[in-house]
Amino acid sequence: MAKIAILGYGTVGSGVYEVVKTNQAIVDGNAGESIEIKYVLDLRDFPGDPVEKILVHDYDVILNDPEVSVVVEVMGGVEPAYTFVKGALLKGKSVCTSNKALVAAKGPELIKIAREKDINFFFEASVGGGIPIIRALNLCLTADDIEEISGILNGTTNYMMTKMADEGWEFDEALKTAQDLGYAEKNPEADIDGWDACRKIAILTSLYTGKNTDYEKVYTEGITKISAKDIKYAKELKLRIKLIAESQKTDEGLVAMVAPIMLKKSHPLYNVDGVLNAVYVRGNVLGPAMFFGSGAGKLPTASAVVSDVIAAVKNRHNVEVVWDDEDLKLSSVGSVRRSFFVRVSGSEDEKLPKIKELFGEVSTVTAPGVTGEFGFVTKVMSEDEFNKGYEKLDGAITRIRVDNVVNKQEEN
Amino acid sequence: MAKIAILGYGTVGSGVYEVVKTNQAIVDGNAGESIEIKYVLDLRDFPGDPVEKILVHDYDVILNDPEVSVVVEVMGGVEPAYTFVKGALLKGKSVCTSNKALVAAKGPELIKIAREKDINFFFEASVGGGIPIIRALNLCLTADDIEEISGILNGTTNYMMTKMADEGWEFDEALKTAQDLGYAEKNPEADIDGWDACRKIAILTSLYTGKNTDYEKVYTEGITKISAKDIKYAKELKLRIKLIAESQKTDEGLVAMVAPIMLKKSHPLYNVDGVLNAVYVRGNVLGPAMFFGSGAGKLPTASAVVSDVIAAVKNRHNVEVVWDDEDLKLSSVGSVRRSFFVRVSGSEDEKLPKIKELFGEVSTVTAPGVTGEFGFVTKVMSEDEFNKGYEKLDGAITRIRVDNVVNKQEEN
Repeated sequence: MAKIAILGYGTVGSGVYEVVKTNQAIVDGNAGESIEIKYVLDLRDFPGDPVEKILVHDYDVILNDPEVSVVVEVMGGVEPAYTFVKGALLKGKSVCTSNKALVAAKGPELIKIAREKDINFFFEASVGGGIPIIRALNLCLTADDIEEISGILNGTTNYMMTKMADEGWEFDEALKTAQDLGYAEKNPEADIDGWDACRKIAILTSLYTGKNTDYEKVYTEGITKISAKDIKYAKELKLRIKLIAESQKTDEGLVAMVAPIMLKKSHPLYNVDGVLNAVYVRGNVLGPAMFFGSGAGKLPTASAVVSDVIAAVKNRHNVEVVWDDEDLKLSSVGSVRRSFFVRVSGSEDEKLPKIKELFGEVSTVTAPGVTGEFGFVTKVMSEDEFNKGYEKLDGAITRIRVDNVVNKQEEN
Repeated sequence: MAKIAILGYGTVGSGVYEVVKTNQAIVDGNAGESIEIKYVLDLRDFPGDPVEKILVHDYDVILNDPEVSVVVEVMGGVEPAYTFVKGALLKGKSVCTSNKALVAAKGPELIKIAREKDINFFFEASVGGGIPIIRALNLCLTADDIEEISGILNGTTNYMMTKMADEGWEFDEALKTAQDLGYAEKNPEADIDGWDACRKIAILTSLYTGKNTDYEKVYTEGITKISAKDIKYAKELKLRIKLIAESQKTDEGLVAMVAPIMLKKSHPLYNVDGVLNAVYVRGNVLGPAMFFGSGAGKLPTASAVVSDVIAAVKNRHNVEVVWDDEDLKLSSVGSVRRSFFVRVSGSEDEKLPKIKELFGEVSTVTAPGVTGEFGFVTKVMSEDEFNKGYEKLDGAITRIRVDNVVNKQEEN
């Protein structure tokens, strides 16, 4: 019998309770012993709720109960989660968390304590919800030099971009609908400004490089500047705009970024729509692989947390995770080579000579109902090269990166 | 230092050697100790090849060397692989194999010996090549009641179906090209008759149910009857025909089958083209998840084998795999409900009254350039119901199953 405690009875916390109860026989079977939820910690009361009798308001009750061997942290945010998690690990209790803010900020320290205490700090649900990408990197794709990870890691913005593409909605309309449906929060900045995806790609980058990736140093651009007009141009170009988090080893070093990117139909992430998440991994011998599924949501996220609990119960000793506190040196995104889509006011006759002078040959595009401007796509060039030209372009309205991989799936 | 032996220096065996040598530092790092290939077993000689000096022709040399802790079996076929693998396990050596024929035929026995000897029998590469689906089922999706697994598990036939759809090729043309490119063997029956996919879905079914699935009892239909005319009808219906291996828990029990199925664009496997493999998994709390990548090929398969070697070196004790020798009772495919596409000779005027009498309302379809016949799609019905009508239909040319799931991705 393994006894666990859940810190936080919000969406994910109540999901963890529900998953354990619903699948108790399967969970116990896979863990090799019965799993009992002994405590749920929350500041609130839940009169009439099944957890009423196991609810505690004082964390010390859990911390000081030697029977509790696994602590599930699903409160979110760095504090007090960090203090609680560190306290549990120091007491020799394994911790499983869905908290990407905590993992991105304190990952190496907590991993180190778990190693020293010969217990485990697991965080499968912190990236990609129910998609088992963390364990895939730690336990499955171990024979490879991972060269690239890119993905759609934020369901809220992917829902918005899908609706903007399919329904022609403006950004504000897509955001309001996402909020009404509960996909986006009232303060949606973490999603729409790209910070959620940024933390997640930082975690994945730390795992595949073994060094700590400071998420604050990852170039991050959200979707707030994407408009219905941009989508119209994308449709003419047969491209879809997605918020992509990417991290790759290049000749100039490791580059990580989050930005809206126009994808071709042949791109493996092109078809990932709605609230789904997907992670694309390229290994030097494996070639391309992709994982996709529900990136968020109460039960899929809870499923990942409970799979961590099972692993923590089964593995009474530390399962090594290589994520040192040495900082990973990130190279400038300026060296990344791709095409760029640009919208510019005025007419082709008037602007094209200057555009060709700045960028070389381009292909132009117009969008139905969009007047007084036109768009063009550059050849493949580095961001630095592109920016030099873009700064000198009069009447530039916006620019969006274009993915140039012909077909990553068939690359190897 | 862990010493390993490779049994068989064919495509996969030489790939394993190459992956270990290419990624030696990564492999050693992830295994926690240095991995050395001490022997390669093959009947042939390879003068001038790097393995020349470690090549042995007598398996007893490996079996009786206590330094060898992990044996890699990549010979294929049940014998002598079975005898070799069993011998190694009984000597306390862990075994990693890519051999689906061996795993499908002898899985439970070999897993049991490994458990008794407190070592490991790993077989990640036996299904889905480089896609880590076995470890995902054993170690990741552990909190779920898995309700369905379906997939495109054979790259050769998927390449053929893709080319038939994209280029309008006839079956024979697609097969010959696949053979010329080395995707299909000279005796391609295992692929085109569906037996390769059948063994793989039997392995996955055994793993997610925990009981032994006799692959010979899995209903299996290959792609040999699919013609360019069928593809033309599929195009008119905006469907793609794929060889699908599927296994699901239904109200009537567990049903497993391999057959060509017409998929809608919204189906998660619709876009999986060429030699790629994909595995779709649906859990009761996770919802839908999908894994895809290179399902075959020297290096992707070797990548999976080497990840097994790393796991075998890291886990000196048995990692439990639940796959009992108790036989799983499979229910008849007759209870599975879906639509059916039928081609029938003659004219609609002449045939439709009888068709409606047999199947109820249907929607008819004609294909460009196909004369003297037409097609129709039935409403959703069980296979048993459909077959009753189909037997009585004069002039029936062929029938293909149609998937009716509107959008599995958005189901949960």
